[in-house]
Amino acid sequence: METVSGENSHVGFSKYSKRVVLRTILGRGDRGVRLIGQRVVIGGWVKSSKEQQKNLPEEVVVSPTVNLGFSEVMQSRMSPCFRNIIRLLIGGNGHPREKPDFSPAKNLPVVAYLLVNDGSCVSSLKVMVDSSVAPISQVTPTGTSILAEGVLRKTSMPGKSGIELKVEKILHIGTVGLVEYPLAKSGLPLESIRSYPHLHPRKTMVASVARIRNALAYATHTFFQSHGFLYVNTPVITSTDSEGCSEMFQVTTLFSKAEKRDDPNPVGDGRAVNLEVVKAAIKEKSAKVQELERTDSNKEALAAALKDLDKANKLAIQLEAQEKLNARTLKVEKVDFSKDFFSHQAYLTVSSQLHLESYASALSSVYTFGPIFRADKSQSSRHLAELWLVELELAFAELEDVMNCAEDYLKFLCQWILEQRPDDLKLASKHMDKTTIDRLQSVVSTSFERITYTQAVELLMKVTDKTFKTEIKWGIKLAEEHESYLADEVYKRPVIVYNYPKEVKPFYVRLNDDGKTVSAFDIVIPKAGTLIRGSQREERLDMINQRILEFGLAREQYEWYLDIRRHGSVKHSGFSLGFEHMVMFATGIDNITDAIPFPRSFGRLTC
Amino acid sequence: METVSGENSHVGFSKYSKRVVLRTILGRGDRGVRLIGQRVVIGGWVKSSKEQQKNLPEEVVVSPTVNLGFSEVMQSRMSPCFRNIIRLLIGGNGHPREKPDFSPAKNLPVVAYLLVNDGSCVSSLKVMVDSSVAPISQVTPTGTSILAEGVLRKTSMPGKSGIELKVEKILHIGTVGLVEYPLAKSGLPLESIRSYPHLHPRKTMVASVARIRNALAYATHTFFQSHGFLYVNTPVITSTDSEGCSEMFQVTTLFSKAEKRDDPNPVGDGRAVNLEVVKAAIKEKSAKVQELERTDSNKEALAAALKDLDKANKLAIQLEAQEKLNARTLKVEKVDFSKDFFSHQAYLTVSSQLHLESYASALSSVYTFGPIFRADKSQSSRHLAELWLVELELAFAELEDVMNCAEDYLKFLCQWILEQRPDDLKLASKHMDKTTIDRLQSVVSTSFERITYTQAVELLMKVTDKTFKTEIKWGIKLAEEHESYLADEVYKRPVIVYNYPKEVKPFYVRLNDDGKTVSAFDIVIPKAGTLIRGSQREERLDMINQRILEFGLAREQYEWYLDIRRHGSVKHSGFSLGFEHMVMFATGIDNITDAIPFPRSFGRLTC
Repeated sequence: METVSGENSHVGFSKYSKRVVLRTILGRGDRGVRLIGQRVVIGGWVKSSKEQQKNLPEEVVVSPTVNLGFSEVMQSRMSPCFRNIIRLLIGGNGHPREKPDFSPAKNLPVVAYLLVNDGSCVSSLKVMVDSSVAPISQVTPTGTSILAEGVLRKTSMPGKSGIELKVEKILHIGTVGLVEYPLAKSGLPLESIRSYPHLHPRKTMVASVARIRNALAYATHTFFQSHGFLYVNTPVITSTDSEGCSEMFQVTTLFSKAEKRDDPNPVGDGRAVNLEVVKAAIKEKSAKVQELERTDSNKEALAAALKDLDKANKLAIQLEAQEKLNARTLKVEKVDFSKDFFSHQAYLTVSSQLHLESYASALSSVYTFGPIFRADKSQSSRHLAELWLVELELAFAELEDVMNCAEDYLKFLCQWILEQRPDDLKLASKHMDKTTIDRLQSVVSTSFERITYTQAVELLMKVTDKTFKTEIKWGIKLAEEHESYLADEVYKRPVIVYNYPKEVKPFYVRLNDDGKTVSAFDIVIPKAGTLIRGSQREERLDMINQRILEFGLAREQYEWYLDIRRHGSVKHSGFSLGFEHMVMFATGIDNITDAIPFPRSFGRLTC
Repeated sequence: METVSGENSHVGFSKYSKRVVLRTILGRGDRGVRLIGQRVVIGGWVKSSKEQQKNLPEEVVVSPTVNLGFSEVMQSRMSPCFRNIIRLLIGGNGHPREKPDFSPAKNLPVVAYLLVNDGSCVSSLKVMVDSSVAPISQVTPTGTSILAEGVLRKTSMPGKSGIELKVEKILHIGTVGLVEYPLAKSGLPLESIRSYPHLHPRKTMVASVARIRNALAYATHTFFQSHGFLYVNTPVITSTDSEGCSEMFQVTTLFSKAEKRDDPNPVGDGRAVNLEVVKAAIKEKSAKVQELERTDSNKEALAAALKDLDKANKLAIQLEAQEKLNARTLKVEKVDFSKDFFSHQAYLTVSSQLHLESYASALSSVYTFGPIFRADKSQSSRHLAELWLVELELAFAELEDVMNCAEDYLKFLCQWILEQRPDDLKLASKHMDKTTIDRLQSVVSTSFERITYTQAVELLMKVTDKTFKTEIKWGIKLAEEHESYLADEVYKRPVIVYNYPKEVKPFYVRLNDDGKTVSAFDIVIPKAGTLIRGSQREERLDMINQRILEFGLAREQYEWYLDIRRHGSVKHSGFSLGFEHMVMFATGIDNITDAIPFPRSFGRLTC
């Protein structure tokens, strides 16, 4: 764990809230031991709890959720239908408006040990609450918030070491609605709570991901600022397709306000079932079944996957029938966009690069960190509709310059989180991927291999110990399997592949003198795939005109972009880092929806 | 100007581009004098230039744009119509594909002094180019880019001091299309180039604004990180109206790809004229005329404003007639959103606060810095459709805590740019507002006055030296004139007004014990108005339910938000800073569209 600077025997009160931040106690080298005797106010959420008879050493109650009052027991045994009736009667999600009195009977346990976490670090503080201070059953459920004053002392918890807070006064309790609280059980897998992104950060692992993500973001700013780059806020709403032929979202105010609540097929809290979404899911599920069949995995997994696929197929048939019955058809035809908010069509940006190039052509060294959008109807574990990119653009720089910059930047990021977030990394290594820390250290310490696309293809064509699904030959877009083989098997270190065939890279990449390849590069990291893509941009007006023609793009959309080549054009280069992919690499999590606070993807928009 | 650390007598090459960053020469305490004799490569854009007969002391040519070749002179004298024909013939914006030879006649000037800027600082480097090195007429136009190698020496420019680069080798010239380059003339006002946001940063003042904006952003991260806040990337696409009753943009993929190019009323490069936009402009223009009439301003300004209004009125009549003729009507009726990308309606966020509250209810101290969107049909100089907010949320914190935090944060921002960007501030003071630096210093050095809304109203009711347009009485929303009077006239320092009537603040603000007021605050800065708005949030489930009811909001949209109150609710508070307003305050610019790189507002979407 990072240690807190300026350690002494006094706690530091948080400047802007009426409590001590737990990191200032638990993040010390002595883990708070020299603070014993101090009076503090702490606040946080209960992670788990144990209850004990006062003065009796043995533990009586272990689980945080068993000490229910009568109404909770009743509710937990209800059928879903009956629970819905209760919900209608008492409002909300079924949580009673008045806090019920959960106090235990007189002869039940009267001391509680809570593990309380405030999100400032992985560790939780042991907190001892006596029933004379607060009703024990109110403070023990996982998720309860408390603000409490007490004295730090050596823990009285049997068999445990370290310090604890002996609570003398409870300043606030925020109870949980036991029956409805989705995180009540401990050890829930990430998948099971994805429908609750607003409660997601209360999971220990999700909080660690959030802290690592924060560290990566600040490291990004620190790196670029220290090299004189300026942070530019490029636009989200744009009239330009920055990548050419992207799947873009449109932004509009044409749907009238009156339409706002007119959702013909709402399910529950506004979520609707979409046939296309189900079809996409079927595709994914079929692929999974095939994969399991191919790899001769265990029969149980295959049976489960088949059952899952069957369920989705049945739902699709149902929806198709329903759709035919549904007379309401889509009436968005011949829309007059001159009446829309911006007087013409507006999109959500797919990349900030073109806009950033305009700023680089005046301020030389610029970068941005912002959201971009892809209306990509995929539901794979590596796709999001809204994601964050770090993008950099550097004037008077050629391919080699930005390859150097990208390599240094990646190393800096890895070094930074190794130093700043060791505890979060330790947790990630334990729960997600044991190799996480080693992989980060390896990026820091090895210099990246650099090979041309042509060399890569030659090398891959000689491979005999593996058959690739996509046949390797010069001119193809390298698939993930090819790139991975280079990084994982051949070089066993990060690899930069550069000078790709012009057909496989976007229109703005600079054509090399051979007329066949372009100055683009990808950085492939072992076990993580491609994290960074970059290129030298085409600065020659005639060449970029030619490329726009070749790609069949709508030239009028790029007139402003061509101005940068018409007036004072310079050689310039840049790259982008998919920030969520970096978070996945740094934490070892394997689903991109866990790498961003409120994930958005095809058919999924919660909160 | 900020000085470059580690000064010695060697230039530092830029690590990632093949040139020396000009700040490392001009940003030194000695302004580069101790670097005389060094060989360097520099790159940048020509800001202005002078030409001279070799060995003759007097200047022959002063303006950068007069040395035109024949074809340029011809084009500049063409009628717009004829120029359009030329444009069709040669493509693009009328710039010839082949670079014409602009070399001067043998007996014309043969030495050029260029002022070259690379965006790293306000100052430009004097660069001397001899005609034996490059064709003089190619390097002199404003906006030309050059990459040049030479030796630093005492300037040979008559009557000037300091250093210059004597160029020995030109590595690259990026010419400008003289006739079409919108920034060819120097001293253009910001208004005149707003249609060219992609060339905007080449203006000295715009570059300064960009550097100050960058400094404010990094200061923001530095301040919050140093206080243990975590940066959380809240979503842009959302199903929730975070403010209640906001004008929101919708996000959709329902308009088919085939529709993409079907713009029934395109003008020029895709810009269309919208009747509503013209009507909004008429409203603004009428207000301006009224203001001029009331203030008895000079007759010329009034006449110009009337003419302007008349023009807009005529355009509106024309468009109305056209619209009646236009048979194409809007057919967006009964849209089936279950077929849209997210299976239900999706909006662009108007505030990240609710999502941030969910993270604060687990990680305690969080902030975000990201774009938000308002589909507000206003064209005033203080409105944008896409703007950036800094938002902060702090658990276990009450109103006073976040007022303290907001005050410290504002002081930190002002202190930071005073230290980091003195040259940019000097330029802003000179060209935009002479009081800029004083205003910043005053925020740093004075402690903010704090008064309740009730005190503010009592105080304003006693005012006799001024008549307010909106009558002051308890219960009204304070208007800008009221707030300004408090900060500018009464206290002459920043004022925090808090405890507003519950009717004038959003549903999520915490109700005070009096049942009439809520724990909200605004920070009003002299001459700048309200920069920060914040509040303690309502953490009590029954109370927030009540408020949602009172405001008549769609409760089902807020179910997830209510979960935060259902499970482990804590007292928490936060605030937001309108980043563009902060940029305006820090630079003295008076139009918000100059405070952001690519401004978007009603009817305006360029690039």
